[in-house]
Amino acid sequence: MRKKVYFAASIRGGRADAALYRRMIARIQETDTVLTEHVGSPELSVLEGGRDADAAIYAQDTAWLRECELVIAECTNPSLGVGYELAFAEKLGKPCHVFYDRRRTQLSAMLTGDAYFHIHPYAGEEELFAALDGLLR
Amino acid sequence: MRKKVYFAASIRGGRADAALYRRMIARIQETDTVLTEHVGSPELSVLEGGRDADAAIYAQDTAWLRECELVIAECTNPSLGVGYELAFAEKLGKPCHVFYDRRRTQLSAMLTGDAYFHIHPYAGEEELFAALDGLLR
Repeated sequence: MRKKVYFAASIRGGRADAALYRRMIARIQETDTVLTEHVGSPELSVLEGGRDADAAIYAQDTAWLRECELVIAECTNPSLGVGYELAFAEKLGKPCHVFYDRRRTQLSAMLTGDAYFHIHPYAGEEELFAALDGLLR
Repeated sequence: MRKKVYFAASIRGGRADAALYRRMIARIQETDTVLTEHVGSPELSVLEGGRDADAAIYAQDTAWLRECELVIAECTNPSLGVGYELAFAEKLGKPCHVFYDRRRTQLSAMLTGDAYFHIHPYAGEEELFAALDGLLR
């Protein structure tokens, strides 16, 4: 049974890791369904759309958060949106798995300090994908 | 009557704007009380403390979010913690004011697209402090 996954990662906070997001999404799609496939797209706009257009993005993303069975967040690159989405998902009681490269960043205490979240620090993609496989398979 | 203000800004997401945070906190303190004065300190540690130490930070910050009457967030520098805090404050029904330098960043659609938030784009500190004064006085 394919699970519905909300994949969360930085968009306007910075796209330095966009190729990594695409590889993670492809791996999740081998066994499950990713509602937010666009997060891995190299062409994704990172510009503000104005409050009306951004309200449509907000409505879609919060609808997907309600629909999903699982949240997987790549948090190496800081992101206001991902922080918001994780708090929103926690309130809905959705299981949340947070991945970050511990060689490249220090994770927020609002995530590491919140016992609700499953935190997966990794060092390199081999560790990351092994943890992801362990979670999904 | 002095209001209790929760000032939110990036810590582990990056301290490039720490001096700006300190100036904003000092301005707010002219009329009101800032529960999170440490956010402006240049000596603040940006290292993970391990899950137990980070749990103490999380417990303190969420207690202050419950206690405050108003949230003021400086969001130019992306931050997972600030995104989390804003969603948390929204759920508590606390008024939330989001400031960011529109010349330096594109704000997340999870903030600009959420009609709950009062969004204050600014271009330079003169505009920022005028908006802050308008809000508080």
